[in-house]
Amino acid sequence: MHPLLKKKGFIIDIDGVIGKSVEPIEEGVKGVQKLLEIGKRVVFVSNNSTRSRRILLERLKSFGVSAEEKDIISATHATASFIAKEKKGAKVFTTGETGLQEELINANLKLVDYRDAEYLVVGSNRNLDYDLMTRALRCCFLGVRYIATNPDKIFPSEDGPTPGTGLIIGALYWMTGRMPDVIVGKPSKIIMLEALERLNLKVEDVVVVGDQIEVDVVAGKNIGAETLLVLTGVTKKEDLNGAKVLPDYVLQSLNDLFFS
Amino acid sequence: MHPLLKKKGFIIDIDGVIGKSVEPIEEGVKGVQKLLEIGKRVVFVSNNSTRSRRILLERLKSFGVSAEEKDIISATHATASFIAKEKKGAKVFTTGETGLQEELINANLKLVDYRDAEYLVVGSNRNLDYDLMTRALRCCFLGVRYIATNPDKIFPSEDGPTPGTGLIIGALYWMTGRMPDVIVGKPSKIIMLEALERLNLKVEDVVVVGDQIEVDVVAGKNIGAETLLVLTGVTKKEDLNGAKVLPDYVLQSLNDLFFS
Repeated sequence: MHPLLKKKGFIIDIDGVIGKSVEPIEEGVKGVQKLLEIGKRVVFVSNNSTRSRRILLERLKSFGVSAEEKDIISATHATASFIAKEKKGAKVFTTGETGLQEELINANLKLVDYRDAEYLVVGSNRNLDYDLMTRALRCCFLGVRYIATNPDKIFPSEDGPTPGTGLIIGALYWMTGRMPDVIVGKPSKIIMLEALERLNLKVEDVVVVGDQIEVDVVAGKNIGAETLLVLTGVTKKEDLNGAKVLPDYVLQSLNDLFFS
Repeated sequence: MHPLLKKKGFIIDIDGVIGKSVEPIEEGVKGVQKLLEIGKRVVFVSNNSTRSRRILLERLKSFGVSAEEKDIISATHATASFIAKEKKGAKVFTTGETGLQEELINANLKLVDYRDAEYLVVGSNRNLDYDLMTRALRCCFLGVRYIATNPDKIFPSEDGPTPGTGLIIGALYWMTGRMPDVIVGKPSKIIMLEALERLNLKVEDVVVVGDQIEVDVVAGKNIGAETLLVLTGVTKKEDLNGAKVLPDYVLQSLNDLFFS
């Protein structure tokens, strides 16, 4: 039996482990199904900054994974929770798409234009334009508290890389000299501590599973958890040579937990 | 008589000296008219990365300044000239607006999509969107020679700052780690040497006039020219306290050359 099967809880990345965009990764889905069958607690943690938990849940269900909304922690949701804890009902200007807006509204935050904002919330937006960037720039200059959903620079897609939230973070940094006061998504501890709280387990009883060293493995280490890297996503075995941070375990896929 | 009136040539910034966007600055226009009347050679140098020289010429004429297209060096034109000198007929992918595209085509360069590009030419674009940024990102990753029209981070406008070319430079830097191989606009020597060549004068016979220390004054110093800062643009007298670089002369407006 794989030593990680002694753990009580699994914090699992979605993209690159369970699915690739809207397509399931079969070996990842099988692995999750088995973990749930043997009674492990599972929480899915995604740096996705454009989808609400509702949409991510629909996606997991379409893969054949049985989960509830409470089992999912997205960067969108964690960002909304973080701000709501800091300042109930805060007025927020966001660069984000409807998925992020939905989570902010669900957390009883008020979406406003930049002039009235107490928070600038930066998340990726595939409909960004010059006007949105101008508003974000001005909000940044107003000196309000600046939160980013996640630090992801780029995403792989079928025909090449596409910009992540890093497009906006980089543009604002260059134009104003400001970096986010807080970044919520992995490898930040903020989203990971929320996952741990959701599992209601001690850190030594959980493992963090993902496909990216700088994102998932570092996130796990940041809370002191053991880490499992799976090779169903962006990382190849040879990428481990010379990596600054190494996972505790490496498997071809999540399902390989049951065959090693 | 002001000592600068001994100079034979004047390299003059447009925005903040002669006009503010489409509005003339009266004292700047009067100053230029007098310089031309007494037979000084004048070349207008603008970091504008969205207008062709043709449009800038129309603007100068609407201010009442008599000039020809050859008297104007815009970052758009200087960028096109620079690339055409490096590689005749080069294939170029640009983020820029029609003003930049017009100059690139006039220099016999070929506008292509990012996959076929030999050059990435970054200039500001008020119609930018996620798709344009994705193409620029991919072009950057392809490792082709990367030229930026100008380094301007932001522009003042009536209702607040708006993004300059720095939006795209910053976003690409953050996402890819690449900075432009060449920046053409002020304070770069490239655009200033083209101005000097146009005047056909030695550097000791010219003065560089502008409203911004970090842009115009530094540009003048970069070619070893004397510099005149006018206070009709973004710089206020108090900004000179503690400035790292100081102009040789400061006047309220260009016209004050004739009253001091």
